[in-house]
Amino acid sequence: MKAEIIAIGTEILLGDIVNSNAQYIAQELAALGIDMYYQQVVGDNEKRIIYAFDEAYSRSDIIITTGGLGPTEDDLTKEVAAKYFKKELLPNEEAIEKIKNYFKFRERKRKMTENNLKQGLIPEGAIIINNDNGTAPGVIIEENSKVMIILPGPPKEMKPMFEDTVRPYLQKKADSIIMSRVIKILGIGESAVAEELKDIMAAQTNPTIAPYAKDVGVMLRITAKANNEEEASKLIEPIEKEIKNRLGDNIYATEDVNIEDVVAKLLIEKKLTISAAESCTGGMIAGTLINYPGISEVFLEGAVTYSNEAKHNRLGVKNETLEKYGAVSEETAREMAIGIANTAKTDVSIVTTGIAGPEGGTPEKPVGLVYIGVYFKGEVTVKKYVFNGNRSRVRLQATTTGLDMLRRVLMQK
Amino acid sequence: MKAEIIAIGTEILLGDIVNSNAQYIAQELAALGIDMYYQQVVGDNEKRIIYAFDEAYSRSDIIITTGGLGPTEDDLTKEVAAKYFKKELLPNEEAIEKIKNYFKFRERKRKMTENNLKQGLIPEGAIIINNDNGTAPGVIIEENSKVMIILPGPPKEMKPMFEDTVRPYLQKKADSIIMSRVIKILGIGESAVAEELKDIMAAQTNPTIAPYAKDVGVMLRITAKANNEEEASKLIEPIEKEIKNRLGDNIYATEDVNIEDVVAKLLIEKKLTISAAESCTGGMIAGTLINYPGISEVFLEGAVTYSNEAKHNRLGVKNETLEKYGAVSEETAREMAIGIANTAKTDVSIVTTGIAGPEGGTPEKPVGLVYIGVYFKGEVTVKKYVFNGNRSRVRLQATTTGLDMLRRVLMQK
Repeated sequence: MKAEIIAIGTEILLGDIVNSNAQYIAQELAALGIDMYYQQVVGDNEKRIIYAFDEAYSRSDIIITTGGLGPTEDDLTKEVAAKYFKKELLPNEEAIEKIKNYFKFRERKRKMTENNLKQGLIPEGAIIINNDNGTAPGVIIEENSKVMIILPGPPKEMKPMFEDTVRPYLQKKADSIIMSRVIKILGIGESAVAEELKDIMAAQTNPTIAPYAKDVGVMLRITAKANNEEEASKLIEPIEKEIKNRLGDNIYATEDVNIEDVVAKLLIEKKLTISAAESCTGGMIAGTLINYPGISEVFLEGAVTYSNEAKHNRLGVKNETLEKYGAVSEETAREMAIGIANTAKTDVSIVTTGIAGPEGGTPEKPVGLVYIGVYFKGEVTVKKYVFNGNRSRVRLQATTTGLDMLRRVLMQK
Repeated sequence: MKAEIIAIGTEILLGDIVNSNAQYIAQELAALGIDMYYQQVVGDNEKRIIYAFDEAYSRSDIIITTGGLGPTEDDLTKEVAAKYFKKELLPNEEAIEKIKNYFKFRERKRKMTENNLKQGLIPEGAIIINNDNGTAPGVIIEENSKVMIILPGPPKEMKPMFEDTVRPYLQKKADSIIMSRVIKILGIGESAVAEELKDIMAAQTNPTIAPYAKDVGVMLRITAKANNEEEASKLIEPIEKEIKNRLGDNIYATEDVNIEDVVAKLLIEKKLTISAAESCTGGMIAGTLINYPGISEVFLEGAVTYSNEAKHNRLGVKNETLEKYGAVSEETAREMAIGIANTAKTDVSIVTTGIAGPEGGTPEKPVGLVYIGVYFKGEVTVKKYVFNGNRSRVRLQATTTGLDMLRRVLMQK
């Protein structure tokens, strides 16, 4: 079974956006064991979309399109697909009801326009793919052993639809099963991981082991192809065990969760309350941690103490410390950690102080220098890091590294 | 003149990497006024590469390929191109010298292999594109009014080669220039924007007006094709003016900047200090605002007051208010705004309190309900919103909407 992705949208041809949908779907197809030999991108133009469909069906069984489901006249995908398969577009009650409700309950400030109802038209006989994050449902058209899966362009709508509906649909069509295990790593880089696992990676064909560099950190995916789940598990387990042995504590998760989920779970499990005082990360650590639902049980308070005054007034960092060692120093980080834990009355605290740039660096304290402190019931650990990249890269790395440092401290306790 | 990009590489088909080269080249072609109607991705396979070449030349004049110039046997692009144009591959002295020097001076740690010399083979009669950042030179093949531009895959090699050699080469071939203007919008959705501008969008062919839904908000791009910059400006200006008239304050920028940049600039210009107290956004507003370098002049302090205790102790929200109206209420938001502005001693403050979900919603206070408050020198404005989507969508929308609310208040003062 061969699939082909056709991204439809002039904005990709103009380079306004990168075709990240194709990457996501490609990874999903690879995990399902479905081959893909070609991808296409075409603009919002009827003639050229049909040309692309013809081309794709000459060599593939399944076409997956993304984009062109919006409410404007530019958005043509469903209309062209209906024409291509000689199907009428019919108003779908359920889809229209959903669009109306979406505007009624979720978007009270915005008026529904006639345009939005166009999104409720569905090719006759098509399977509807529910869209919980927008007004454009997707559709699956099956015709003479051809399958076309039509998805919207915005990743925040497309991805949940793929996960909830398309993946199970394709899974039924696939002839063998593919099982994947994810290993998530922080603290060592992609090349160090590859070096460490070189021999296993070279020796393996089933399961395969592929490393992916993430925004911060590395993800390994172990993928086995087998007749059933039990067989696949048996193939994966010994490899997974060996990888865990070699990478140890650098592994923070063996499922696709984020570092904040791991830290939040540890805090809740251990019934430890936490506070945060952030300078260069300026709220990002608190903001990230609070992604975890249920964190309110343990997260008591955060402070963004960007100025020296705030560090002194709010956290009680001594003026002598700020003068003698500077705001970006191990000593300041230490006093910040104690200060926020004491005033917020928490078991644990995490703090950052650093130079995110682009200005403010000196030879002794370059841009990228960040001190991260973790307080745990009276004990403080401070670590010094020098991150590279621009302002937002430095802040992102400080945030993730801080959460990872917190994880390592919590695991020891 | 029409161009087409063919990315060659199995790693893209497997989703291991995103095709960012296509975006870069697409932007460059758009700026040069060269049309592109299709893009393709194909694996490292001779038959399929030839199929893609045939396809592309049936509809385009110029093919730009990326990838497949590496030293391994998988890397086929130049070999297949030479075969396609019936040219011999000849060792190019200059190219081979460069490869040898590269290993001698730049990569002392790695040894040059015989494979690397394969990279010094050039189709006879081709123009060489120097590669200062790697060992694979690019080539331009011109044959019977067909042009093929062959570039390596790694962006750090490809981009400088495009800039130094390919752009000037294409510039000579291009007959017109393309100018774009961006308009960024918050507060009304994509369909409302489209509805509002329906008549102008339908009437326009040059410039064109295209709306794009962003994570939060909408971006419009006005694009004109003309003989020179002055002509292009003249085409764009009246349309831009009319759009500004119709969308008014909903436009927050006419360049590709983020809402936090606009807000930060306004604060710094007007010399207004600011603080933030966040409940459901939990640090995201402070974290986003601090993306702006130089914000330290005006951003004094932030508080993440997630619990009722923190709202009371840290911000002085009255216990009666929390009991009578609840933590998620207009009254609480109002007291939070006054509390943080007073204790941090700032001119302005911004606060949020809401239910991000997935738990905690009731019929009266559903998931997605968020109160956002802005304090400005003694006056407080509180607005109620109901956002849709999951926890992180609610938090993201609350953050962006809060910053936009701040912008609107600051513009009135």
